[in-house]
Amino acid sequence: MVDRVLGVLGGMGPLASAQFMLRLTLLAPALRDQDHVPAVLWSDPRVPDRTAARLAGGEDPLPVLLRGIRGLEAAGCGAIAIPCNTAHGWFAPMQAATDLPILHIVDAAAAELRRLGVTSGRIGVMGTAATLAMGLYQERLGALGYDCILPPPAEMEALVTPAIGLVKANRLAESYPPAAEAAGNLIARGAAAVVLGCTELPLAVAAGPALPFPVADTIDALARAAIGWAMA
Amino acid sequence: MVDRVLGVLGGMGPLASAQFMLRLTLLAPALRDQDHVPAVLWSDPRVPDRTAARLAGGEDPLPVLLRGIRGLEAAGCGAIAIPCNTAHGWFAPMQAATDLPILHIVDAAAAELRRLGVTSGRIGVMGTAATLAMGLYQERLGALGYDCILPPPAEMEALVTPAIGLVKANRLAESYPPAAEAAGNLIARGAAAVVLGCTELPLAVAAGPALPFPVADTIDALARAAIGWAMA
Repeated sequence: MVDRVLGVLGGMGPLASAQFMLRLTLLAPALRDQDHVPAVLWSDPRVPDRTAARLAGGEDPLPVLLRGIRGLEAAGCGAIAIPCNTAHGWFAPMQAATDLPILHIVDAAAAELRRLGVTSGRIGVMGTAATLAMGLYQERLGALGYDCILPPPAEMEALVTPAIGLVKANRLAESYPPAAEAAGNLIARGAAAVVLGCTELPLAVAAGPALPFPVADTIDALARAAIGWAMA
Repeated sequence: MVDRVLGVLGGMGPLASAQFMLRLTLLAPALRDQDHVPAVLWSDPRVPDRTAARLAGGEDPLPVLLRGIRGLEAAGCGAIAIPCNTAHGWFAPMQAATDLPILHIVDAAAAELRRLGVTSGRIGVMGTAATLAMGLYQERLGALGYDCILPPPAEMEALVTPAIGLVKANRLAESYPPAAEAAGNLIARGAAAVVLGCTELPLAVAAGPALPFPVADTIDALARAAIGWAMA
């Protein structure tokens, strides 16, 4: 029986956190309820929009993020996973505010790339405009020897940002074509794999035919990291 | 923005609670994160097996259930939903132990039957052996004018119980045929609709072609009840 309790700071968006809980369960080596990872999901969709905060002077999400972390501490969790890439722009102040280890989603994505056999070279990264502008992936994956390429601004505006918004509005079928097109374009520009560096994107990509190239799904990546922590 | 926080006492099983969170999100009338229902999911798969406790003298799950309720109270939740039918065998002592209203899953199933246009007469009920032995559905739906029929013991053993176990072991594709067969047999015996009175069963039934008769899914039913509470 697994006795480490995972804290999940979620709600950003709520569908992505629910999907994270589903994958945390389906990826666990379990034969019955009692083999699964105990978890507390703090799903607070009221967290102010992370992209608006970073790029447009919107309300700072940090106080609401810290409220969630306090709740997960009080619930007896032993580590925290945050199935929202953009929220990792506040990773340092969150980690400074808690003794619990926070599993970093970009480290999990790097492990997922290695699992896919992609250990260096050019990779495509899709994410929110804020995640890409903050350089979350470029910096951390660059240090590991990857060369990150991004969708050009026109494709961010026409394809990636709308796909993310459609998932947040529960319009999954419509989110697939723009997400798939932007991912395919990164491969056409020489990427060996595409990182879905926004947790809405795996939901978009799952709403149509499987993409015919390696894809690092950051929901699955973080779920695998969390199972690894819980079973250690 | 929705400000009522839903507490979800889950982990029984963990896949059913994750699916509940997914449906809570997809069934909400939302255009962006901030329109969704804030929720805390206490997913504790360590709760002792409810069926074993009721039918085979296994460990009492009530203390672990009450620990979860205390956690949800401390997290600031305003009501509790429990996406596990069998756990409702402990509804009375749980409700007696908290001031928070607990949304009863059988009442939610009754509302789902009405939504499907089935307002009286014969209905089929599938569930764990303990849920059926406790008469959770027969008593509460009987009072509303329904006549509940159940799978015969041989089908419980050969079809329903294995289907539930396969979902708990993450073997969804294999869980479909026995679940679909047992449901079809209830319709053949004159039921106007089938209630999936175990939250593993909607996952089994979703793993194959849609069933060609009315099905009341208790995950969706409870999610609709929770959204109704949160938006009230």
